[in-house]
Amino acid sequence: MNMANAVREHLVSMLVHNKPGVMRKVANLFARRGFNISSITVGDSEVPGLARLIIMVKGDERIIEQIEKQAYKLVEVVKVTPIDPIPENRVEREMALVKVKFGDQKQELFQLVEIFRGKIVDVSKEGAIIEITGSRSKVEAFIRLLSENQIVEIARTGIVAMNRWNVVEKEGF
Amino acid sequence: MNMANAVREHLVSMLVHNKPGVMRKVANLFARRGFNISSITVGDSEVPGLARLIIMVKGDERIIEQIEKQAYKLVEVVKVTPIDPIPENRVEREMALVKVKFGDQKQELFQLVEIFRGKIVDVSKEGAIIEITGSRSKVEAFIRLLSENQIVEIARTGIVAMNRWNVVEKEGF
Repeated sequence: MNMANAVREHLVSMLVHNKPGVMRKVANLFARRGFNISSITVGDSEVPGLARLIIMVKGDERIIEQIEKQAYKLVEVVKVTPIDPIPENRVEREMALVKVKFGDQKQELFQLVEIFRGKIVDVSKEGAIIEITGSRSKVEAFIRLLSENQIVEIARTGIVAMNRWNVVEKEGF
Repeated sequence: MNMANAVREHLVSMLVHNKPGVMRKVANLFARRGFNISSITVGDSEVPGLARLIIMVKGDERIIEQIEKQAYKLVEVVKVTPIDPIPENRVEREMALVKVKFGDQKQELFQLVEIFRGKIVDVSKEGAIIEITGSRSKVEAFIRLLSENQIVEIARTGIVAMNRWNVVEKEGF
């Protein structure tokens, strides 16, 4: 197996002009090109008037280059920064709100929340809302450990990520 | 001033079929209708195969009804749930990663992170990456309190929200 061409998840950070429809334009472009987006988030960036899109996309090593090439075709795209594929070189986070029914497992739930360093942000007689923050795998492990009939509602943010301070950003990884 | 028609931010939660392009379709539809989206997030929901979109949109009281009507025109949209406009009745959260240079303000920064219950998720000689979670206004207050030349990079998730346990969901608010 050629490791360089193994299919895996890649993260890309993009600075874009924060005009109405820019996210739609990026999503349209990527859909036309057949990119397989598994997470997309958008929010104001450090530059006034520019938003930052963080996109997780599945593909082999060449996909980052393809994304850069395609993205720069849009006048709204200011900068594309690949995020280091080595987990130790980046910070990657997701947040989820999970609404759960207590049933007869209230104590077990509170223990689980403590183990995962979650926060109880709402509580009633019947249940609670838990805020859980961490890597995608941590968020998914927490959800997996709840029983299916406990879960009432899940709202997830998608992934935000950036390269750590010690990572020198270069064109492509 | 007619309070019922005051323009403000509204939050809507939508369950949609998790097919490629569904977010794009929703964004396309809303753009065509001239809805002013100030935040959009998407992630897996509690139902396998369905994603949850959380949309913040600016408008008067009638906009929720208009969104519901438009959204249900898409076959991908399974359910639209308005989120209670009263802040006490909902949980609303955003997360941001903020990369900051220390400069000569390292101690002030650490104090600010403590006050906002942020987390330092990366640190080097030159700076740190801070994870900050809370309402949009809390996240924005933290960013505003940093000096402009301290901020290197910001990645924000957009808003996730849900009604609290004590809120009875009804058609429209």
